[in-house]
Amino acid sequence: MREVAVIGIGMTKFGELWDKSFRDLVAEAGVKAIMDAGIEGKDIDAMYIGGMSSGGFVEQEHVAPLAIEVAGLEDFHIPATRVEGACASGGLAMRQGYIAVASGIHDIVLVGGAEKMTDVVGTEATNVLASAADREWEAFFGMTFPGLYALMARYHMHKYGTTQEQLASVAVKNHYNGSMNPNAQFNRKISIEDVLASPMVADPLYLLDCSPITDGAAAAILAPLDIAKKYTDKIVKILASTQASDTISLHNRKRFDALPAAIHAARQAYKMAGVEPKDIDVAEVHDCFTIAEIMAIEDLGFFEKGKGGKATEEGLTAIDGQIPINTSGGLKAKGHPVGATGVAQINEIVMQLRGEAGKRQVKDAEIGLTHNVGGSGGTAVVHILGVI
Amino acid sequence: MREVAVIGIGMTKFGELWDKSFRDLVAEAGVKAIMDAGIEGKDIDAMYIGGMSSGGFVEQEHVAPLAIEVAGLEDFHIPATRVEGACASGGLAMRQGYIAVASGIHDIVLVGGAEKMTDVVGTEATNVLASAADREWEAFFGMTFPGLYALMARYHMHKYGTTQEQLASVAVKNHYNGSMNPNAQFNRKISIEDVLASPMVADPLYLLDCSPITDGAAAAILAPLDIAKKYTDKIVKILASTQASDTISLHNRKRFDALPAAIHAARQAYKMAGVEPKDIDVAEVHDCFTIAEIMAIEDLGFFEKGKGGKATEEGLTAIDGQIPINTSGGLKAKGHPVGATGVAQINEIVMQLRGEAGKRQVKDAEIGLTHNVGGSGGTAVVHILGVI
Repeated sequence: MREVAVIGIGMTKFGELWDKSFRDLVAEAGVKAIMDAGIEGKDIDAMYIGGMSSGGFVEQEHVAPLAIEVAGLEDFHIPATRVEGACASGGLAMRQGYIAVASGIHDIVLVGGAEKMTDVVGTEATNVLASAADREWEAFFGMTFPGLYALMARYHMHKYGTTQEQLASVAVKNHYNGSMNPNAQFNRKISIEDVLASPMVADPLYLLDCSPITDGAAAAILAPLDIAKKYTDKIVKILASTQASDTISLHNRKRFDALPAAIHAARQAYKMAGVEPKDIDVAEVHDCFTIAEIMAIEDLGFFEKGKGGKATEEGLTAIDGQIPINTSGGLKAKGHPVGATGVAQINEIVMQLRGEAGKRQVKDAEIGLTHNVGGSGGTAVVHILGVI
Repeated sequence: MREVAVIGIGMTKFGELWDKSFRDLVAEAGVKAIMDAGIEGKDIDAMYIGGMSSGGFVEQEHVAPLAIEVAGLEDFHIPATRVEGACASGGLAMRQGYIAVASGIHDIVLVGGAEKMTDVVGTEATNVLASAADREWEAFFGMTFPGLYALMARYHMHKYGTTQEQLASVAVKNHYNGSMNPNAQFNRKISIEDVLASPMVADPLYLLDCSPITDGAAAAILAPLDIAKKYTDKIVKILASTQASDTISLHNRKRFDALPAAIHAARQAYKMAGVEPKDIDVAEVHDCFTIAEIMAIEDLGFFEKGKGGKATEEGLTAIDGQIPINTSGGLKAKGHPVGATGVAQINEIVMQLRGEAGKRQVKDAEIGLTHNVGGSGGTAVVHILGVI
């Protein structure tokens, strides 16, 4: 297997982008990544696009050739494939791209993720998102994603004494980080009191415990490490790319205080990269709800199981803390265009490792991790990146 | 790269399966393939599932962990990924599975495809299928898939003199073949007169020029050739696995009498396998409409461009003809559960190469080809299989 590098990144601003269509978002992120890498469109050998439900949100499937068309790459007839794993779709696109390059099948691979979520009305976004859960045995009976994560939050509070304020402290930190990210949907700082005063969505999750509905796209260019040097000096190496599965339904899961798929993917990733949790300098984790970040930093081994809430409350996951988590603002403040999120996480870690993260830069960041989850934990993808 | 074999196949009956849910179909095809290969569930290292729009048809995305759950494989946490390329989704799952095994990343890979299309009412199936076209510039203005292929048919008739009867002869042959396939949706023979007397769907395509709406699933087990022998003697080798893209829209395509992506994928496949069109003993091609089969047998190099209609009319593509095409009955008679089709094509070719195709067996079949298309040609996947 060849060593693989990320040689370019690009993303749109995340938010309610009324003036941009799905194809506009795809084009913008792709072009930015291509320009950042210093390659030309004709250099691209294959494309993987992560998308959760463009069918549900904008009635458009088959988005890989759509991306080919908006990029003007049709005459090269390169393989272009959409992958889907709900909110982990972007991470899956990264992993398929990694496999394609590492195996020697392709050299330059464009990896992308996109979702246009604000073109549906009323509760339709919630319904489309519920297609990431078990439709027949969960969603059909009224279960939603806030509901599923609320169950996990209640269990975590019951078992470990995690508090409402600890949950809220995740949102406060991520909004603070998001206030320094020009691409974030929300640039507004919030307080614990703001979270606890916001409307209850699914007890114990308030509105400000939940990530928003977002439009956005992100892209990255992958290349074999030896070829990478031909194009750019801004090279970040992929140290590990792993993926794990579990039941799609929460009720058939073996445990409720963790996502076993994430634990499994993380263990494999540390082994593949030859590092330990303490070696990670910065991480983007899947905080679709505040409880999800608390479980994530435990599942990833940064903190003992049950201690994630306390650690967050004590500031250990702040930018200047023991292990900075979601410097981008995370899904909570940067926004969560579901299919794009996994690739946007890669964008942030690459910026951190290049020292380009501006006000939210982590000092001396050399190894970074991304943790991308689909549904209530049916899919988990972990990447570890490092400076060369 | 390692040599890769298909060591097991399985599929459901195709048809309007009112008594079976999406998950029932996934489970049945997977279990059949596992039993055929003589492996156990715990032997599986990864899973790729092709599906076009389970979101649109049954409001279920994230189908890979659903497959993991119905198969009872959750404790192994293996990577499970859905891939989507409209009606080529099954072919894409095969290619991703091939890459995973050939590269050495995984050993035993389960590849599947599934679609449950008959749970929507009225014209909704047509609308969901139209999401494989360009929603903003084709479907939104009323264009449907019969309409898109009708344009190509009219052009082919104009340019090459292809006749209505020649189109109909594709349907007649495929229904004849389907009459010998117990898994086919239609087992009824039809005549040229039947086709021409059926309702017009989109001029010049009659109802019997069109493939049906179908429920069904198919699966295959892939393994490295050297490991394959440990499990089974029924080994079929993958000689080539290729994929190409083009514009999603028809109006931006460079030509209308062929699918350039299919031509490109086929050329690469012949090169990869070290064979020529004349070496192929049997082929399953993507006959979503009769004109599609005519273009396919030209694009694949079996007949000169423009001569596909005449060749079909003369019986050259019959089971005992020069190059037997769609011995299974094809999408036309076997049925077309869109995400399953690419894997079902692999099922038929493996049966032919094993000599297990019963009444529709092609004599001395040693090399077979599959040709799977997404949309109006935005995605094309070609596989060449051979006996060892």
